[in-house]
Amino acid sequence: MRLPVQVAVPGFRGGGVWCGIKKGAAPDLAIVLSDRPCTSDVLFTRNRVAAAPVEWGRGLRPRTRSSLRGVVANSGNANACTGREGLAAVRRVSAEACRALGLPDESLLVSSTGVIGVPLPADRILAAVRGLCASLSAAGIPRAGEAILTTDAYPKRCVRKVRVRGGTVTLGGIAKGAGMIAPGMGTMLAYVFTDAAVRAPDLRKTFREAVALSFHRIVVDGDMSTNDTAAIFANGASGLPPLGGKGLSAFGDALRELLLDLALMIVRDGEGATRVVRIAVTGARSDRDAEAAARAVATSPLVKTAVFGANLNWGRVIAAVGRAGIEMDPERAEVRYAGERVLRRGMMIDRQAERRAVPKIRRKSYGIDVDLGVGKGRSFVYFSDLGHEYIRINAGYRT
Amino acid sequence: MRLPVQVAVPGFRGGGVWCGIKKGAAPDLAIVLSDRPCTSDVLFTRNRVAAAPVEWGRGLRPRTRSSLRGVVANSGNANACTGREGLAAVRRVSAEACRALGLPDESLLVSSTGVIGVPLPADRILAAVRGLCASLSAAGIPRAGEAILTTDAYPKRCVRKVRVRGGTVTLGGIAKGAGMIAPGMGTMLAYVFTDAAVRAPDLRKTFREAVALSFHRIVVDGDMSTNDTAAIFANGASGLPPLGGKGLSAFGDALRELLLDLALMIVRDGEGATRVVRIAVTGARSDRDAEAAARAVATSPLVKTAVFGANLNWGRVIAAVGRAGIEMDPERAEVRYAGERVLRRGMMIDRQAERRAVPKIRRKSYGIDVDLGVGKGRSFVYFSDLGHEYIRINAGYRT
Repeated sequence: MRLPVQVAVPGFRGGGVWCGIKKGAAPDLAIVLSDRPCTSDVLFTRNRVAAAPVEWGRGLRPRTRSSLRGVVANSGNANACTGREGLAAVRRVSAEACRALGLPDESLLVSSTGVIGVPLPADRILAAVRGLCASLSAAGIPRAGEAILTTDAYPKRCVRKVRVRGGTVTLGGIAKGAGMIAPGMGTMLAYVFTDAAVRAPDLRKTFREAVALSFHRIVVDGDMSTNDTAAIFANGASGLPPLGGKGLSAFGDALRELLLDLALMIVRDGEGATRVVRIAVTGARSDRDAEAAARAVATSPLVKTAVFGANLNWGRVIAAVGRAGIEMDPERAEVRYAGERVLRRGMMIDRQAERRAVPKIRRKSYGIDVDLGVGKGRSFVYFSDLGHEYIRINAGYRT
Repeated sequence: MRLPVQVAVPGFRGGGVWCGIKKGAAPDLAIVLSDRPCTSDVLFTRNRVAAAPVEWGRGLRPRTRSSLRGVVANSGNANACTGREGLAAVRRVSAEACRALGLPDESLLVSSTGVIGVPLPADRILAAVRGLCASLSAAGIPRAGEAILTTDAYPKRCVRKVRVRGGTVTLGGIAKGAGMIAPGMGTMLAYVFTDAAVRAPDLRKTFREAVALSFHRIVVDGDMSTNDTAAIFANGASGLPPLGGKGLSAFGDALRELLLDLALMIVRDGEGATRVVRIAVTGARSDRDAEAAARAVATSPLVKTAVFGANLNWGRVIAAVGRAGIEMDPERAEVRYAGERVLRRGMMIDRQAERRAVPKIRRKSYGIDVDLGVGKGRSFVYFSDLGHEYIRINAGYRT
C-alpha cells in the first residue's frame, strides 16, 4: 500500500533549514531523529575516493553503526577531497548535533552532498544546528528531504504500510540524487525510517538484500559517487514485537518496493533522462553472467543514445552483450523490444515485429529482454537514456 | 619519416569500385593484393557476437592465416547476425576473388563493415569482383582505402619508410572507422602492407605489440564492434633479407607509430569529437592497475562531457579512478591538466593552477596525468570527448 507525500513515521521527527552553504536560501541542513533507541544499518559508496563523512562513517564501530538514532546531513558541499580538516569538520558537526539533542556522541549518521574540493563551512552548520534541533517535528521529515537536495528537480519521498501479525508497521523514505548529474556531486543519499522493531542482524540482512535489488539495479552513467550513502533506522515505536518469519518477509518486500520507487525517482530525475528502460537478461550461464550482460547494455553510450532517439537498434544491444566477457552463443540469442521479438537465434527476424515495436519504444518506459539460451541465469537493471540535456548539463556543470 | 597520401608499397596493388551495396555510387568493394607470397597476421574483435567474415577468419588454419596475400572487403553491409547464409556468402566471395586472381582458395582475408542484420548481397560482389581484380594497380591502394569507409568523414592512410641495414623498407596502412559511431557498424578495419621480409613469428609478435600500444589505446565509447579487424602483410619485395635484431626493432617502432597515427585519425573522425585527450596514469601498484584507472577515466561519460565543455572537472577524474577497482590512497593522488597540478595529495590545490589550466584545456588535444603515488605501474589511453554531435548521430543512426 503506497501513500503520498507525508512520510510521517511514528517516533521520528525531522526538519530542514538554510544554514548558509547554498547560495539563495534553499534549505541545506537536515536532521531526522528517532525519539527512542533504534536498530540501524548503513551502506556507503564503494568508491576508493570517499568523502570525509563517508570515511568517518566507515570508521564507526559495528555496534555504533547498528544503533544510530538518525542523521544530520548538509547539501551544497560534498566535503570530499578536503583532507584532515574535512574529517575534523565531520567530528565537530557530529558532536554538536548530538550535544544539542542530548544524545551520546556518535549517535547520528553524518552525510554531505554538493561541490567537491571546497572546505566545508562547518561554522555555519554549527551555528544553525541547535535551532534546527529545537524545531524538529513529526511533520518536518519532508522538509529534511528538501534540505538534502542539490540539482534534483523534485524531492523523492515515499511511504508504505505493511500489515504484520498484531498490527501495521510504517516505512518512510527520503532520497536525493538526480542521476544524470550526480556522480561528481555525491549522487545518492537515501534514508529509511520505520516504526517496526527489527533485530539488528535481521535489519542488516533485509536492508542489504533490498538495496541489492533496488539502488544497485539502476544505472545512469556508470559513475559512482564519492558520497553515496543509504541507511535504515528501525525504532520499534509500533509497539509490536520484533519482526520474524512471515512478518519480516512482508517487511522485506515492502522495503524493496519502497527503495525501488525511490531509485526510479532518481533515474527519472536526470534532467537529460527522457526514458527509463528495464533490461532483463535470461538464459545466461549464471546470474552473474546475466548481470554483467545487463550492465554492459545499460552503460553502453550507443544503446543509451538509441533509446533516446527511439531507435530500434538491437544490433547495439547484442554487440554490448557480446563484449560483456560472458559465456554466450550468438546463434542462440534472442532480443525483444517491448515484447516484440526482433532477433531470434542470432538472426534478424521479420520486419513486421520491428514495425510493431517501433511505436512502443517511443514510450516513457519499456523493457528490453535478452535471452541467451545457454542456462538459467537471470538479472535485470533499470537505465536511463542519453540525450542532449545530459551533455548540456554535464559539459557546463562545475563540481 | 612520414609521407603523405600515396601509400604505394612495392609489390602491392589495390583498387576499389562501387558494386551496388551502398546507396549512391561511393566505392564499396576493395581489394589489396601482394604480387608475391607474404607472411601475414590478423587480429579480430574480441566481441562474442562476431560478424560472419570474422567467424570465417577465426576458423582459418594458423598456417593459412600467416600466409595471406591480401584482403577483399566490402562496406555498406556488416554481414553480422546473418546466420549460416552469411557464412556461406563469405565463402563465395573468398572463392570468387581468389579464382579471379589465380590464387589458391583462402589466400585472401575477407572483411565487411556496415549495417548489421541485413543479408549480404553477395551476388553484387561476385558480379563486380572480376572486373575489380583486373584493374588493380600500385596507385590504387588509396582507392581501396576509400571503398572500406562507412560514416567516416575522411579516409585514413599513412606511409612510413624505415632505414634498415642494406636499404629501406616501406610500411603503408589504410584504415576505416569513425570512432563515435562505429561500434554498431564494424568500428575499425586496418590493413598494413610492407615490402619488408619478416618471418611469420616475428611479424606476429611485432604486430601484436604494436596493436597493443595503438588501437588498444584508443577509447571512443567503450563499445566494441562485431567486425573489428586489423591485419598486416609483409611481402619482402624490398629484396632485403628477413629483418632481425636492430632492423626488426626499428621496423616495430615504425609500425607502432603508423598504427598510432591511424588510430588517432579514427578517434578524431568521430563527428562528435572535438577534442582528443591522453590520460596517463603513473604511480600505480601495477601496469594493469594503471590501465584500469586510465580506462575508467576514458570511458566515464561525466569526464567526457566535461572535456567537451572545456570544464576543469578534476573531481570527476579522481572519482572515476576511485571506482576503477584498483589499489589507491586518495591522500597520495595527484592530478595534472595540461601540466598544471590541480590536485595534490587528495586535496584541492591553489586556484591559480586551475586558472592557468583553463585556457589550455580549450585546445584540440591535451594531457591529463594522474599519479597515484603507490607504486611504479603506468599506462595511458587516448580518448575523445562526448558532445552534442555524438547524440545527434547515434540517436538517429540505424544500424
